[in-house]
Amino acid sequence: MSATPEAVTTSRSPAASAKGRWLPVGLAQAKITGGFWAPRQLRNGDSAIPSGQDQLETAGNLQNLRLAAGIGEGEAIGPVFADSDVFKWLEAAAWEYGRNPSEDLLKRQRELTAIVAAAQRDDGYLDSVVQLRYGDEGRYKQLVWSHEHYCAGHLIQAAVAQVRCTGDRELLDVAVKVADHLVATFGEGEGKTVDIDGHPVIEMALVELYRETGTAAYLDLAKWFVDARGHGIIKEHGHEPTYFSDRVPIREATTVEGHAVRAVYLAAGATDVALETGDAKLLEALKGQFADMWSTKTYITGGLGARWEGEAFGDEYELPPDRAYAETCAAIGGIQWAWRMLLATGEAFYADAIERMLYNGFLAGVSLKGTEYFYVNPLQLRGAAHADNNRSPAHGRRGWFDCACCPPNIMRTLASLDGYLASSSDGAVQIHQYAAGTLTVGDATLTVETAYPWDGAVRITVDGSVAVELRIPAWADGATVNGSAVAAGTYARVEADVIDLQLPMATRVVAADPRIDAVRGCVALERGPLVYAVEQVDQQANVDDLHLLPEAAVAASHDGGLLDGVTVLQTRGRIGTGHQGGWPFTSDAADSVGDEVDVVAVPYYAWANREIGAMRVWLPRG
Amino acid sequence: MSATPEAVTTSRSPAASAKGRWLPVGLAQAKITGGFWAPRQLRNGDSAIPSGQDQLETAGNLQNLRLAAGIGEGEAIGPVFADSDVFKWLEAAAWEYGRNPSEDLLKRQRELTAIVAAAQRDDGYLDSVVQLRYGDEGRYKQLVWSHEHYCAGHLIQAAVAQVRCTGDRELLDVAVKVADHLVATFGEGEGKTVDIDGHPVIEMALVELYRETGTAAYLDLAKWFVDARGHGIIKEHGHEPTYFSDRVPIREATTVEGHAVRAVYLAAGATDVALETGDAKLLEALKGQFADMWSTKTYITGGLGARWEGEAFGDEYELPPDRAYAETCAAIGGIQWAWRMLLATGEAFYADAIERMLYNGFLAGVSLKGTEYFYVNPLQLRGAAHADNNRSPAHGRRGWFDCACCPPNIMRTLASLDGYLASSSDGAVQIHQYAAGTLTVGDATLTVETAYPWDGAVRITVDGSVAVELRIPAWADGATVNGSAVAAGTYARVEADVIDLQLPMATRVVAADPRIDAVRGCVALERGPLVYAVEQVDQQANVDDLHLLPEAAVAASHDGGLLDGVTVLQTRGRIGTGHQGGWPFTSDAADSVGDEVDVVAVPYYAWANREIGAMRVWLPRG
Repeated sequence: MSATPEAVTTSRSPAASAKGRWLPVGLAQAKITGGFWAPRQLRNGDSAIPSGQDQLETAGNLQNLRLAAGIGEGEAIGPVFADSDVFKWLEAAAWEYGRNPSEDLLKRQRELTAIVAAAQRDDGYLDSVVQLRYGDEGRYKQLVWSHEHYCAGHLIQAAVAQVRCTGDRELLDVAVKVADHLVATFGEGEGKTVDIDGHPVIEMALVELYRETGTAAYLDLAKWFVDARGHGIIKEHGHEPTYFSDRVPIREATTVEGHAVRAVYLAAGATDVALETGDAKLLEALKGQFADMWSTKTYITGGLGARWEGEAFGDEYELPPDRAYAETCAAIGGIQWAWRMLLATGEAFYADAIERMLYNGFLAGVSLKGTEYFYVNPLQLRGAAHADNNRSPAHGRRGWFDCACCPPNIMRTLASLDGYLASSSDGAVQIHQYAAGTLTVGDATLTVETAYPWDGAVRITVDGSVAVELRIPAWADGATVNGSAVAAGTYARVEADVIDLQLPMATRVVAADPRIDAVRGCVALERGPLVYAVEQVDQQANVDDLHLLPEAAVAASHDGGLLDGVTVLQTRGRIGTGHQGGWPFTSDAADSVGDEVDVVAVPYYAWANREIGAMRVWLPRG
Repeated sequence: MSATPEAVTTSRSPAASAKGRWLPVGLAQAKITGGFWAPRQLRNGDSAIPSGQDQLETAGNLQNLRLAAGIGEGEAIGPVFADSDVFKWLEAAAWEYGRNPSEDLLKRQRELTAIVAAAQRDDGYLDSVVQLRYGDEGRYKQLVWSHEHYCAGHLIQAAVAQVRCTGDRELLDVAVKVADHLVATFGEGEGKTVDIDGHPVIEMALVELYRETGTAAYLDLAKWFVDARGHGIIKEHGHEPTYFSDRVPIREATTVEGHAVRAVYLAAGATDVALETGDAKLLEALKGQFADMWSTKTYITGGLGARWEGEAFGDEYELPPDRAYAETCAAIGGIQWAWRMLLATGEAFYADAIERMLYNGFLAGVSLKGTEYFYVNPLQLRGAAHADNNRSPAHGRRGWFDCACCPPNIMRTLASLDGYLASSSDGAVQIHQYAAGTLTVGDATLTVETAYPWDGAVRITVDGSVAVELRIPAWADGATVNGSAVAAGTYARVEADVIDLQLPMATRVVAADPRIDAVRGCVALERGPLVYAVEQVDQQANVDDLHLLPEAAVAASHDGGLLDGVTVLQTRGRIGTGHQGGWPFTSDAADSVGDEVDVVAVPYYAWANREIGAMRVWLPRG
């Protein structure tokens, strides 16, 4: 083990790098106290995390670990990656404790940590399902599907969060043993195995463990895992490599492809490696990949992944709204990647991307109550759709899934959200996301007051001496700071005791690049960072038949009683009656003009909270 | 066994029912001798069927059967349904022998039949993969996935074809033992098992065996399998039932859903049951399901199945051209279902449907050479698409597949195509599909001369006394018979020695019902029964960026040297340049007007025979 003596952790936050252009501001320094996000975090801490523990008990994930620890007898239950859900829950609990400490939550973490520690083998190996199903002989035999590194990665991330937020080192000890075992087992050199996990995440995790412990071997192994991909390892095991992000080396890739969560987790890990090793070439490649993803393979909601088959990115401009997969986990991975790119580059583009994913593709994944989840986040549901799959959006959000990766992933993201709000650099603080709360950086304390995203006014009161750099979203043409115009898509730097940012909140009617075939002739409505959707429950006409009138004005009004308070958009449309049965492809299949009707749109994230029914983000215009 | 003494087979053809409104005309009575189809059948017989036998040897299917017969030692290779590919090949060889007898082909059939017979267990059970992998104890343990009835069904169909076309009874003896074993094992009553196969096909097969042998128990069991579906059997086994056509009883279903091939095979089998039992209510339900499929879930190519995930039908109007699955087998199943509906009802609608599926969705599944196949038949391939799956159309057609259901299915369809051309009833012959050849019905012989589908002129010379009923396709407004106008979408009855049918072959520019969101703003080109496609190899501009000019004329010209001879369509388009990178959803994302270019379209079935590249059936107009 090539240990180095010094840890480089900078804050109680995810991706606590000291090497980026900007440094993260940890939980407790950045603190959401009200507004849009505070009640969501409250429900996450009070309802989702406790009920998540119950779900892990019911589904057998915790039982697997107990069995692996020798407590009781039985067989492993559930998918091979069952442990990872426990680890994501532990990570969520740790961040939650970091922003809002409670004895109960500490006790829960310690109980689960003890089970995890007991399940670990003496040599550091830990994967309860493999241990129970295949024994020591079965280790790493099918790494393409076994998720052993994936589970290890989530364990390490949980351990890092736990030590940063609680100071407890128990899980970190387990994680270090796991990581040392991996370092001893994988890579080049005598007695080591050249192989990679089919599902990335270990890369991000090892870099975080390096930041926490200062052990360079972890960073080295992360770098090795990143560079080992794309050289035929998975093909040699008899699998088509695209799905596993293993078709081309990441340094040569020009886009993202294959399984969306795998792809963005890998990219986020590679960004971590680039950050810590100062690898400008790797970072440049990642910039190109992100840009290509953002311009050709991302939904307007920030959703990632156009295909159910393989939960995968499609070809460029293949973005069907009805069959969008847009897995909640992919939005989370997208946020993680964008956050690392933001720290590395200081480009407002990435904070814009986080905002879009956060308020739309991510947030739609959880109900207003906080305890029901979407796995798949389409931009259209037809009236006649029926659920034919555990993950079908036609079910509405569900309490848990057979494959339960998304729920605890949402929990850890909401619990650590404060960590994504701001960063600091020499003498300045950058505010990336606008949320009511406080920021403490050095001697300065900033108080942020805002009803964002409903209102574009943000007041920042600065107590202390610090320059403030405010992200002006690319959509915010006409924004002002203390009355002066500022450029959209950049950071506006200002030094003042009181800062008044005004972001224009006019509704935007947007169309798609014509190469996006699936929404040709349609428009979507946006206001501020929010994408809107038309839900059946609000309409006079069938959503399936609804068209927007091209010239109709769009009125916005806030309704504090609707969907926990949302700004509603209202406009006019007409019913396109179309054909009535029979062969649908004819020379005169033009749409017939029907009656005019009112059209009501609500924020996309809030859909499916009243009833499940037809929904569209993109509506035909004309 | 409730044997009845009399077989009811009417002809050497598939689905040889005596109970329909019309009776099939068998191979040798209906005989394609030239024109469009003859060279395709020639290549099927001369190249595809012999090379298919080689593929079955290479892939291990034949070896599995030898091993099950005790010849050699080893383990089963390939998917659980491996036997079915052998049986489909045997069926293809039998029909091919029926239309074009050869000693070599008879020898090949007898060799394979001997292997199959040797593999059968004494009690009639036969499934080499189950026998080798799970032994006698493993029978029917996972019928939802094991395909045991599915394999039995294809065996029975092969046996029926063999006895009808060669007179050999060896395979029929095997099939009767299999069927008797099934009759003894499944259904209601003491000692019987209430269970169904996850993949229908046994229903059609048992009805055909009933027609061939007169044994009523086979029809009874087919009826039982049809009616057992939709009552929760598969859900009880822990599977979501939609995929398996098991969500609702077929008598109550109003549409098709789930796995497309499963759904249409089941529907075809249910139609057989309705035909033979005179079950008008069941037939009425099937009419409604077919109509709903045809108006809401069928591609313009006749392709069936909008989703890769589950190889399934989508929701109504969910018909994405790029992600169309449109499995070749689903088109074949669709033809089989439509043929049975046609025999039962005498409605031209079903013969129209067969024509559309045959010339487009089916025929695209095989290369001009006859030995390379598409599993999946999309209506759009983007220029940047890369193959990420064994079945990816971006590979181009392939010689075989891991899951090789389609190739031998194509072989049996081409070999038995003559059987779908015509039918007879008291004193009349119905011509459903126009192909150069001869028809012998009773004392009458009809000679059909035509260059269809390139030319709309069909001359029928009648030697003998018979009324001829000619299908006038629904697209053929303005058709004439011997100079008199006839109504499109019906059968025109005529008695004459020489009949001149003229079908109008003007190019049709068609749009889609506006509820088909995926092709909004687009048009497709059709001429006669053919759907056209624009392939990159023929264009000046990138197909991905091509738009058709709304008012441009479309010129048709025959090119005998292109793609084995095709009528080419030429029109004008323009290059829609769209955005150039960056976030693609903006307020001004209208398409910019680019240069005008020539546009060349070729029949969809012929695409991907020169090179694999961008292709579109639907082009934006404007």
